[in-house]
Amino acid sequence: MPHDIQVLCIGNAIVDIIARVDDAFLDEHERIKGSMMLVDAETSARIYEGMPPAVERSGGSAGNTAAGVASFGGKAAYIGKVHEDQLGGVFRHDIHAIGVHYETPANTVGAPTATSMILVTPDAERTMSTFLGACGELTVDDIDEDLVSSAAVTYFEGYLWDRDNQKEAILKAMDIAHAAGKQVALTLSDSFCVDRFRTEFKDLVHDRVDILFANEEEIKSLYEVDTFEEAAKEFGPYVKLAALTRSEKGSVVMTKDQTVSVPAYPAEVMDTTGAGDLYAAGFLYGYTNGYDLEACARLGSLAAAEVISHLGARPETSLAALKKDQLGL
Amino acid sequence: MPHDIQVLCIGNAIVDIIARVDDAFLDEHERIKGSMMLVDAETSARIYEGMPPAVERSGGSAGNTAAGVASFGGKAAYIGKVHEDQLGGVFRHDIHAIGVHYETPANTVGAPTATSMILVTPDAERTMSTFLGACGELTVDDIDEDLVSSAAVTYFEGYLWDRDNQKEAILKAMDIAHAAGKQVALTLSDSFCVDRFRTEFKDLVHDRVDILFANEEEIKSLYEVDTFEEAAKEFGPYVKLAALTRSEKGSVVMTKDQTVSVPAYPAEVMDTTGAGDLYAAGFLYGYTNGYDLEACARLGSLAAAEVISHLGARPETSLAALKKDQLGL
Repeated sequence: MPHDIQVLCIGNAIVDIIARVDDAFLDEHERIKGSMMLVDAETSARIYEGMPPAVERSGGSAGNTAAGVASFGGKAAYIGKVHEDQLGGVFRHDIHAIGVHYETPANTVGAPTATSMILVTPDAERTMSTFLGACGELTVDDIDEDLVSSAAVTYFEGYLWDRDNQKEAILKAMDIAHAAGKQVALTLSDSFCVDRFRTEFKDLVHDRVDILFANEEEIKSLYEVDTFEEAAKEFGPYVKLAALTRSEKGSVVMTKDQTVSVPAYPAEVMDTTGAGDLYAAGFLYGYTNGYDLEACARLGSLAAAEVISHLGARPETSLAALKKDQLGL
Repeated sequence: MPHDIQVLCIGNAIVDIIARVDDAFLDEHERIKGSMMLVDAETSARIYEGMPPAVERSGGSAGNTAAGVASFGGKAAYIGKVHEDQLGGVFRHDIHAIGVHYETPANTVGAPTATSMILVTPDAERTMSTFLGACGELTVDDIDEDLVSSAAVTYFEGYLWDRDNQKEAILKAMDIAHAAGKQVALTLSDSFCVDRFRTEFKDLVHDRVDILFANEEEIKSLYEVDTFEEAAKEFGPYVKLAALTRSEKGSVVMTKDQTVSVPAYPAEVMDTTGAGDLYAAGFLYGYTNGYDLEACARLGSLAAAEVISHLGARPETSLAALKKDQLGL
């Protein structure tokens, strides 16, 4: 067991299958651009059948965040479920290779390792169809109490709310973290996900979560309002610490006492997959290293800019080196 | 069964595991830069353990060539062995998705689908460690007589000479092709491979192969000489049709009657993996469409330039479109 974990990420352990397609492909397969939709094995096979040649890379929202924290040089850990199969081996290799502590045992029976088909359209937007597979089988037994207690921040995905057993695991992790005097962070993940669990997410956000990550669409969906300003106003009375991302408009960090706006870091956008995940990585790396909130947001923007400048949702460049070269931090 | 196959490619069906490393990594793992070395499961696991986060893409020399022919709009087929596992599914999907006819049944017992760890150094050179897995189990039974008889050119990799059962399969395919009045093409694959099978390769090249592909190192190794000119002179009396590639010096097409030199197509070199495979694809697409030899070589150079400008050994851009836009062919 490693000591002094800065950020423990809990999420769906997924291998991405990435290809560029045109908009017609999304229509043909009834995909909603920009969304993450869960699919069963049959639908997954049907979409894959029609997909162009693809590339496989480790992914999963919280897995990408853990990889980002590690790439900055932070101490990151991950909890998520794979099967003992080839893609499970790929997931485990990649997260270990970037320096993340990851010990969740792989399943030897049941569904294969999860895959997400990521369709990248010419506008660089990504549309995801995820077959949850083994990671849907995460349970309270996978929550390592010592690991959670040791982590300054335990971060988890809203995506986990789709399965009751995963939800229970997260609620347990939150209790352990708070009992140890540590903090809990949540990303709302996806506006359709917010739609499915609005009441529960509101309760979490208002009562139990210390640090919230959301993009503009997600926070608007949470409060069912039309503008970012209205959403921020609704959220205001409940905020502890939140980082709200607005794509090319940058991000807004809110606390009880202050609101800090930070511009987006310039990037040539190739594929938006992982932008939010890497923003959270940069922010949490900064936060757990005692940087001020503006610097945290700038680290988030830098990491997001790196990941959207290439295909795939994990950093291809050392974020520790980028941080020094680009921000002088 | 498709009719009128232009190029049937037979080779090791491999999924590539690609990562950028520094030269020290090659030394540490006793790799010879630029070579393909066969490794057992244990060595494969040890190298993978040390590798940085990687990306998975379908590969295999002849598979890349088939994909290239199809990307040009040519009718391509492929024979090669995978296991019925996740990476086998990836290989099958990708080669089908680009339009290659591929029906070799997957193994349901025995070794997993082959993987090749491709280490790309800062000089863009690639060094490969291949665990042959299922594709080492290709036998004469996998050679579809109707398919071979229907193909204008049957192309195979020198890499297949490492296993007797594969060699037998190729010898059978050559006999079928010639009996049907069709042509046979060989790539020498790798100078270390030539070293292992020099006598047999010489016999093949002199007596049985109609179209030879080799790079400068390979043809020099075949005749154990120090310069390209000496190798060409030794080879001269036996040549039917050959395309010899010389990296940035372009390529030389030889027949009994003429020698045509064609410059390399300009490219910003990111990763040399697949350069020879795609050169062969362009050349054979042109050849089986009746282009003159200079045009064949230019098509080869164009396809090689596309594949070395990005990570991975399969085209990322439609070669049919590039052919029209860049060469006006």
